Amino acid sequence: MSLVITNPPRVARKIAEAFARFGVATVHEAQARSGLLAASMRPIYPSAKIAGSAVTVSIPPGDNWMLHVVVEQCQAGDVLIVAPTSPCDNGYFGELLACSLAARGVLGLVIEAWVRDVAALTQMRFPVWSKAVSAQGTVKETLGSINVPIVCAGQIVHPGDLILADDDGVVVVPRLSAEVVLSQSQAREAKEAQTRAGLQAGELGLDIYGMRAKLSQKGLVYRPSDLEG
Amino acid sequence: MSLVITNPPRVARKIAEAFARFGVATVHEAQARSGLLAASMRPIYPSAKIAGSAVTVSIPPGDNWMLHVVVEQCQAGDVLIVAPTSPCDNGYFGELLACSLAARGVLGLVIEAWVRDVAALTQMRFPVWSKAVSAQGTVKETLGSINVPIVCAGQIVHPGDLILADDDGVVVVPRLSAEVVLSQSQAREAKEAQTRAGLQAGELGLDIYGMRAKLSQKGLVYRPSDLEG
Amino acid sequence: MSLVITNPPRVARKIAEAFARFGVATVHEAQARSGLLAASMRPIYPSAKIAGSAVTVSIPPGDNWMLHVVVEQCQAGDVLIVAPTSPCDNGYFGELLACSLAARGVLGLVIEAWVRDVAALTQMRFPVWSKAVSAQGTVKETLGSINVPIVCAGQIVHPGDLILADDDGVVVVPRLSAEVVLSQSQAREAKEAQTRAGLQAGELGLDIYGMRAKLSQKGLVYRPSDLEG
Amino acid sequence: MSLVITNPPRVARKIAEAFARFGVATVHEAQARSGLLAASMRPIYPSAKIAGSAVTVSIPPGDNWMLHVVVEQCQAGDVLIVAPTSPCDNGYFGELLACSLAARGVLGLVIEAWVRDVAALTQMRFPVWSKAVSAQGTVKETLGSINVPIVCAGQIVHPGDLILADDDGVVVVPRLSAEVVLSQSQAREAKEAQTRAGLQAGELGLDIYGMRAKLSQKGLVYRPSDLEG
Amino acid sequence: MSLVITNPPRVARKIAEAFARFGVATVHEAQARSGLLAASMRPIYPSAKIAGSAVTVSIPPGDNWMLHVVVEQCQAGDVLIVAPTSPCDNGYFGELLACSLAARGVLGLVIEAWVRDVAALTQMRFPVWSKAVSAQGTVKETLGSINVPIVCAGQIVHPGDLILADDDGVVVVPRLSAEVVLSQSQAREAKEAQTRAGLQAGELGLDIYGMRAKLSQKGLVYRPSDLEG
Amino acid sequence: MSLVITNPPRVARKIAEAFARFGVATVHEAQARSGLLAASMRPIYPSAKIAGSAVTVSIPPGDNWMLHVVVEQCQAGDVLIVAPTSPCDNGYFGELLACSLAARGVLGLVIEAWVRDVAALTQMRFPVWSKAVSAQGTVKETLGSINVPIVCAGQIVHPGDLILADDDGVVVVPRLSAEVVLSQSQAREAKEAQTRAGLQAGELGLDIYGMRAKLSQKGLVYRPSDLEG
Repeated sequence: MSLVITNPPRVARKIAEAFARFGVATVHEAQARSGLLAASMRPIYPSAKIAGSAVTVSIPPGDNWMLHVVVEQCQAGDVLIVAPTSPCDNGYFGELLACSLAARGVLGLVIEAWVRDVAALTQMRFPVWSKAVSAQGTVKETLGSINVPIVCAGQIVHPGDLILADDDGVVVVPRLSAEVVLSQSQAREAKEAQTRAGLQAGELGLDIYGMRAKLSQKGLVYRPSDLEG
Repeated sequence: MSLVITNPPRVARKIAEAFARFGVATVHEAQARSGLLAASMRPIYPSAKIAGSAVTVSIPPGDNWMLHVVVEQCQAGDVLIVAPTSPCDNGYFGELLACSLAARGVLGLVIEAWVRDVAALTQMRFPVWSKAVSAQGTVKETLGSINVPIVCAGQIVHPGDLILADDDGVVVVPRLSAEVVLSQSQAREAKEAQTRAGLQAGELGLDIYGMRAKLSQKGLVYRPSDLEG
Repeated sequence: MSLVITNPPRVARKIAEAFARFGVATVHEAQARSGLLAASMRPIYPSAKIAGSAVTVSIPPGDNWMLHVVVEQCQAGDVLIVAPTSPCDNGYFGELLACSLAARGVLGLVIEAWVRDVAALTQMRFPVWSKAVSAQGTVKETLGSINVPIVCAGQIVHPGDLILADDDGVVVVPRLSAEVVLSQSQAREAKEAQTRAGLQAGELGLDIYGMRAKLSQKGLVYRPSDLEG
Repeated sequence: MSLVITNPPRVARKIAEAFARFGVATVHEAQARSGLLAASMRPIYPSAKIAGSAVTVSIPPGDNWMLHVVVEQCQAGDVLIVAPTSPCDNGYFGELLACSLAARGVLGLVIEAWVRDVAALTQMRFPVWSKAVSAQGTVKETLGSINVPIVCAGQIVHPGDLILADDDGVVVVPRLSAEVVLSQSQAREAKEAQTRAGLQAGELGLDIYGMRAKLSQKGLVYRPSDLEG
Repeated sequence: MSLVITNPPRVARKIAEAFARFGVATVHEAQARSGLLAASMRPIYPSAKIAGSAVTVSIPPGDNWMLHVVVEQCQAGDVLIVAPTSPCDNGYFGELLACSLAARGVLGLVIEAWVRDVAALTQMRFPVWSKAVSAQGTVKETLGSINVPIVCAGQIVHPGDLILADDDGVVVVPRLSAEVVLSQSQAREAKEAQTRAGLQAGELGLDIYGMRAKLSQKGLVYRPSDLEG
Repeated sequence: MSLVITNPPRVARKIAEAFARFGVATVHEAQARSGLLAASMRPIYPSAKIAGSAVTVSIPPGDNWMLHVVVEQCQAGDVLIVAPTSPCDNGYFGELLACSLAARGVLGLVIEAWVRDVAALTQMRFPVWSKAVSAQGTVKETLGSINVPIVCAGQIVHPGDLILADDDGVVVVPRLSAEVVLSQSQAREAKEAQTRAGLQAGELGLDIYGMRAKLSQKGLVYRPSDLEG
């Protein structure tokens, strides 16, 4: 059955905005290295970064009809996240849909498929993370579902989950653990700031992290080169 | 036999220049979603756009001799389009060939292989769409053919066809239908301009395109979320 | 056995700096088309270029412990070059390690795996050539070796070899032949400068390289198009 | 936290055995085209077919320790299904582990990674569906989890779900809907048997499925060829 | 427009049957190394070989409706050859369609997409060359065209062309040159039979083909190893 | 310079034959998980196994001339191992060359490229490990080198090294360490035989390898499922 679930609970706007201070790598680590989408999901232009509440779309191969349906389900601060039911390399999304989403305050799109009109999307600063870029169009014949759980690029995403995307990729944080992961990210960042200062001053990670004893115990051997210069 | 066909008819310069106003996605749609080269063909730098008449080269694997031969077959407004007879990942093309082509007014290169010297090509603004970038060089031992029909990245290209390339990829328009496709692109763009204004003002595609009845008839069901916030 | 070879001989700093004037494509040709790493090794931002002495790391899959070990083996002018012992798609390297390496004057990283924090690395201009970008983290449990010969992206690299990397990829020049290859690169560049001038002035490669006789002897046939315009 | 969930409920043995009469394609259709693992999951030898209850393993990259842990969690009729937490191309599994699993009545393995000893596995008829074959070994340093929900090759799998695998790939049926999907598979097969008889006798699908009117209405045009023989 | 071209001229049955004596490699060479489909097209079981007249299908992504339409356009000795209009990884074809085609004497299928029911297809000996195997099903909503020229796996195929497929891949021979290529294949095979006898008797290709002088002239140098045993 | 090194030292015939008792996985482990070629190297038919002395060929892209040159450098018990200087997907090798090599007692071929005539090669039982199968032919215009060190599928191979290949892939053992690795393989196999007997009798690896304490210390937690059946 093709379903549109309306008004699912969303991660709080204030929490989502707080996540935007952190990088995907930091949040992924703070979450015990989980929730990262496959590395095939790449931004269409550099330096984009978004953090918002997931609106999910399960979509048939080669058919973008549901992307027109989903627009009125979106509100400001949402991130659209789309996965086809079987791998299909079409440019499901372009500038007109982006205009429509931008008018509602949607922050960006994550799609396990292709995207087109990237010059226009770049100019209007509507960021997209996709598998590739292609002008290849789609039909509008078959239904899908909106705001159901999906698997996108190897990760389970529920509607209302926190989606964070930057140059390093896309990470999903379950809505109910978003607050905890946020404070873990803050703790991690604070600790890294301290380490960074040491490293920039020339201290060694070997010493800061106290690794030398464990390395020696594992059997690491140092030996001067016997080659001549 | 290795053939160089000289002076094939070309798509008219004026028509080619008119195409440069449109995106690859628009022309591909105006042409009933045909003519798009495989999405593996990517530009070496962003925001390049060319529209010109195809000079075709069928070239052996690992051998770029014919790229030296083709230069004097080119004239201002041409686009070079090259496919190896078997897949071979070499950097067939670099800065010196680009200098030679640029001196004749050639607009750019589309090659189902690799390219090198991309820093220099970017600086001189000679755009290339290729499968990848690599410094790997070639030999000059075996002949190919020029201005014969080729299959490049999945599409048939005849000499004199219109080639349009931008950030979304590369589309080929057969020479004899170029005028018709041009006016269909214009019509499409005009219609999209109107739609765009509506969408930017917050109208929904569901209403603009009148999709609600058909969706309902196909069985789309709306249901409020039963999750708690 | 896990080994750290300390103080291997390095290619002379002055020679390495002289290489930085040339492109990877030029040096690869000057070296008889050898030494080029696989084209899957791409820079994380455009226009980066480095030339330095290789510090090699052989590293287990999914484990970046040795990257902490290698830092104190590095000195100004070095390039870190890393290959996992089996293909593993993890983000082994990020901003903190880059701070540590930059503090010692390391020029950049070449890694046959993934990298993360690319926004920060771009901002601090620490260049990396890698197979892909991903936030995926690693563990620190298993040892590897430093300054042993490795195969990285299809090429043998010894510690102290010259590594040159730019937008076209990465080339390795054996330490003992670096001086010879440098002068061959200079000779090649000088010759190309002359050719470039001719080509820019509209001369043809066919004439400059004297190719017409050989083409004719190989059987190349010129024939006017019989298509109508 | 690394968790081993013991004794999860399993799909009933009798139901699993009933599924073994059907192909993966039939069950996937009976389940509204859902639950199919990515096509990259291929059997190591032809004509293998298994249907059993999922024991899930979430495993770190390059480390197969948990495969030793999972053995005592398995019982007759189980299928082991394994996904690494990040893509890693190692041969996690070989003949010794298969001996151990076979001794407990495990039917086979589905792993989104590599496998080795395939000659021995083929000889002992222990079937494996994997991404590829390779001798590359792993370490035993890092924990994972057993009988937690995993995403394997793009699908969510819970412990106790029904796993059906044959030459066409692997499909997962949620434990709680297994009975319903089984009877839908039976209904589908019955209907197909009738269609098959008609088609083998030379009847056309166009007529059996009554497609001609809809095709004509969509605008399909028949036209005799104007080419000469 | 969606078109079904009926009764195109076909390559003569007798000629097609004569081709079945030759391998794809031989015919591809006899045709000056042209007409070979991409190597991604692999047979679903070993040792299959077919030679027949092409019935072409241009088909939308994720939609196999036209495969039901094409059946009545086929006759004994035909080979179905199918390409989607954009890359789409679905299992378009299975056992029921094969029963229908086999009832009309169709020899096999070549499809630049996926196939399913391979166990059944293998058992009934209906050979298929495809990009991959997967149970993933399709919809029936959008039209395509039959017996129009298509590009399949990188080659142009016209209806009525000769299709030869074996373990080495698939080659297309244009209908009008089939007789010439057949006799060139016969000539090539006759010559190879003679060479084979010499090689099996221990003669060297270096001598049979008279290569030594040319090798020496190109600068090949023989040098005894200076390593010790 | 194009070089043919004649009569390099070879791994002793008796040692090579002793290796044929072991699998690639065993030898790779006995050699501390080194020497394994990339998993993209697959056999053209199942159950082939060879162990012999490497004759190496460095070959240009798209050109198989050197394969004719190498035949007379081979003797009984050799394995031909070939790598192109840049990645090139051609069918360099077919049945005639196999006849010639078989006449000299060569055991098989390992080639980081493509192969053709696989039906004939299978029938004559001349095994080949390659990246893929394709009929695509090559030219004979450019020289390469024989019995020089090469990098093949990611590993360094010297002439005279031991090459072992089976269904799991290909491993190279340096000539000078072959005897040591052989006895380590024997030791490993002996130990595994004992373990195998225990596992087949239902003992657990957890106990045989004494893993329980270390798992517990690392923090593994066992917890009964709270789901209902």
